[in-house]
Amino acid sequence: MLQFKSSNFANTCILKLIYELFTTKEFCFFVPKIDTLRALEIKSTGYSAFFCSNFYELTNDYFSNIKNRYSNFVVLLDENTSKHCLSPLLIEIDFLKNALFIEIESGEQNKNINTCIKIWEQLSHIKADRNTLLINLGGGVICDLGGFVASTYKRGIDFVNFPTTLLAQVDASIGGKVGVDLLSQKNMVGLFSNPKAVFVYPAFTTTLSKRQLSSGFAEVIKHALIADDSLWKLIKKYTLSANTVSPFIEKSIRIKNQVVKQDFEEKNLRKVLNFGHTIGHAIESLSLQKDKNPLLHGEAIRIGMLCESYLSHKIAGLSKKQFNEIIQYLIADLPANKIKLADFATLLDFMRNDKKNQETTINFSLLTEIGKCKINCTSSSELIYESLEFYRKLRG
Amino acid sequence: MLQFKSSNFANTCILKLIYELFTTKEFCFFVPKIDTLRALEIKSTGYSAFFCSNFYELTNDYFSNIKNRYSNFVVLLDENTSKHCLSPLLIEIDFLKNALFIEIESGEQNKNINTCIKIWEQLSHIKADRNTLLINLGGGVICDLGGFVASTYKRGIDFVNFPTTLLAQVDASIGGKVGVDLLSQKNMVGLFSNPKAVFVYPAFTTTLSKRQLSSGFAEVIKHALIADDSLWKLIKKYTLSANTVSPFIEKSIRIKNQVVKQDFEEKNLRKVLNFGHTIGHAIESLSLQKDKNPLLHGEAIRIGMLCESYLSHKIAGLSKKQFNEIIQYLIADLPANKIKLADFATLLDFMRNDKKNQETTINFSLLTEIGKCKINCTSSSELIYESLEFYRKLRG
Repeated sequence: MLQFKSSNFANTCILKLIYELFTTKEFCFFVPKIDTLRALEIKSTGYSAFFCSNFYELTNDYFSNIKNRYSNFVVLLDENTSKHCLSPLLIEIDFLKNALFIEIESGEQNKNINTCIKIWEQLSHIKADRNTLLINLGGGVICDLGGFVASTYKRGIDFVNFPTTLLAQVDASIGGKVGVDLLSQKNMVGLFSNPKAVFVYPAFTTTLSKRQLSSGFAEVIKHALIADDSLWKLIKKYTLSANTVSPFIEKSIRIKNQVVKQDFEEKNLRKVLNFGHTIGHAIESLSLQKDKNPLLHGEAIRIGMLCESYLSHKIAGLSKKQFNEIIQYLIADLPANKIKLADFATLLDFMRNDKKNQETTINFSLLTEIGKCKINCTSSSELIYESLEFYRKLRG
Repeated sequence: MLQFKSSNFANTCILKLIYELFTTKEFCFFVPKIDTLRALEIKSTGYSAFFCSNFYELTNDYFSNIKNRYSNFVVLLDENTSKHCLSPLLIEIDFLKNALFIEIESGEQNKNINTCIKIWEQLSHIKADRNTLLINLGGGVICDLGGFVASTYKRGIDFVNFPTTLLAQVDASIGGKVGVDLLSQKNMVGLFSNPKAVFVYPAFTTTLSKRQLSSGFAEVIKHALIADDSLWKLIKKYTLSANTVSPFIEKSIRIKNQVVKQDFEEKNLRKVLNFGHTIGHAIESLSLQKDKNPLLHGEAIRIGMLCESYLSHKIAGLSKKQFNEIIQYLIADLPANKIKLADFATLLDFMRNDKKNQETTINFSLLTEIGKCKINCTSSSELIYESLEFYRKLRG
């Protein structure tokens, strides 16, 4: 019997060709079923993330069970996931070839309410009822925006996530935060709404550029810094590659899931996940507003972690030694973008309008030591400027 | 001590003048506190509806308690509630004079995502944080749209409803359905989200036109027909007037609350509230799309109830006698609009895209007798056409 190795999707054209061959009327009965290791199930509140070493096993469980529960299947994707990730999905989940496919343009700049309107309208045009399942096949934008569209279409339809970027696998697909940006402010419109399931398939990361891979790894680094010093030790010795990143993804999901399960609506503990994000989100927002080729989320978070490590050292008790250790590691892979002194005020303004704040104080989650994070820290504007200046000088 | 009688708001100019006089720096310490009968509390899931015979008592309880819990107070209103309902609110809840007021244009045609965008942007401009309270002061549009904006701004801020129309008092302000229209389809984008409290003040209805009053009363009629034949008997003998409608509002809220408490997300029982709404919503959508002066919600629901009483008689066991009784009552106050034969197909198309449906069947909640309602009824297209034709001929 034919067997497809799915450890590398770079050659999706061949897969597509094989798919087309096997799904023509004459050959469809040949579609192979391969018995593989079962998926690793990471249980969250009301749903599970399935960590799948092999794509094919998915149908064995989840999709064969839910096939008859829904009246419509709609796949949300972008031009990249359409090209690189759709074929393997269609080969395995045969009945999805009759699904509706809604393709949006990739990129954070399209994560806005206008894109939502287009999708809501398309769902309405096909008369998608409340028993429709939306399948988000993509990175953070698709998972966040698709989750929001699903949670608000006809007061909520079910959705599942197939995160295809490293960033989405370790961050956006888990935790139930869905939403879109508004006025260059990250995730200003959204809500908490869990998917029915998440399918994390590390092999998708082989389709990513080095830049995207590195961006996603920023969240793995964050998870280590806030909660797991042994993971941090592994990271320091590790050279990032899509082929070997799998254990880091699993560990990362487990850390995030542990935090989210205890505080879904971010009243307290969950705020630890915001380390690097107060300054990072401001830098990302500014870049989205003014750069032709804006920073990726993880790139901005790397800068944010660098600045907030500075704050951690100054006001949260992070030792000089550990601070230097973090800086030394982060500096080796920083994005090319520079921050100008003239931008500091704008960045502070973005921080002031961050979701995490209460009134005019800016809220930080800072490291007390590697592996431990303290929430609800506040800093003077002067110190925030100082941390930005620290990065600016470091960057040269 | 001065005492304001608030049983009639028609003369809001005088109230406004008095308000301005008493809130100038020199006179603000004179703002009177009046001890009145306590509000009637109708408990729902996680919040209460306060049925207030007198406006002034509100501060005694709720608002004095929450005053320090929020960082910002934002009042959402339209040009009508700004003119007729704001002054009494400001007189009583003194600290609200420092609130932000966001005024939108009244009318169902403005209950759309573009209006939401404007409000989200205004909230963002004033740097409203997650501890902001949105106060919806208006009819169904303000309560539905304001609730949706609040539930999705920065992943959800608190909101309270001050329903000012009869329709909103007996329907939209209770039950946690929030949302907006899309592509002429009613409430296509939204979610289930409860307010923190609802303040139902019947005296607001004295500011309504006869047409608006009659529109709102349609939902009172519906509540009687689906759940309370004794209320129906009272309704038949009653001549609608803003000054005497108060007991009907209270009774109506209690019926709806009883239903909603048992089935918040409309999996089963709550569907009884949809009697008259499958055909009614289609008629309302069509009217919004093509009429210069579109039907009000309750006007469309009256027609919907008439047609669906016909279906109830034909397929759900409603007796000829009770069917005639309902028709005789409803026919006395029907809107002027006529439905053309040529519109029947469009109406059926609207019904097919209704949120309540599963796949292509159209879902009805029909009367088995007055005071009892059966959910999940289906009808042939022919019978639906017949019911529309029944109305068309009745209307002449």
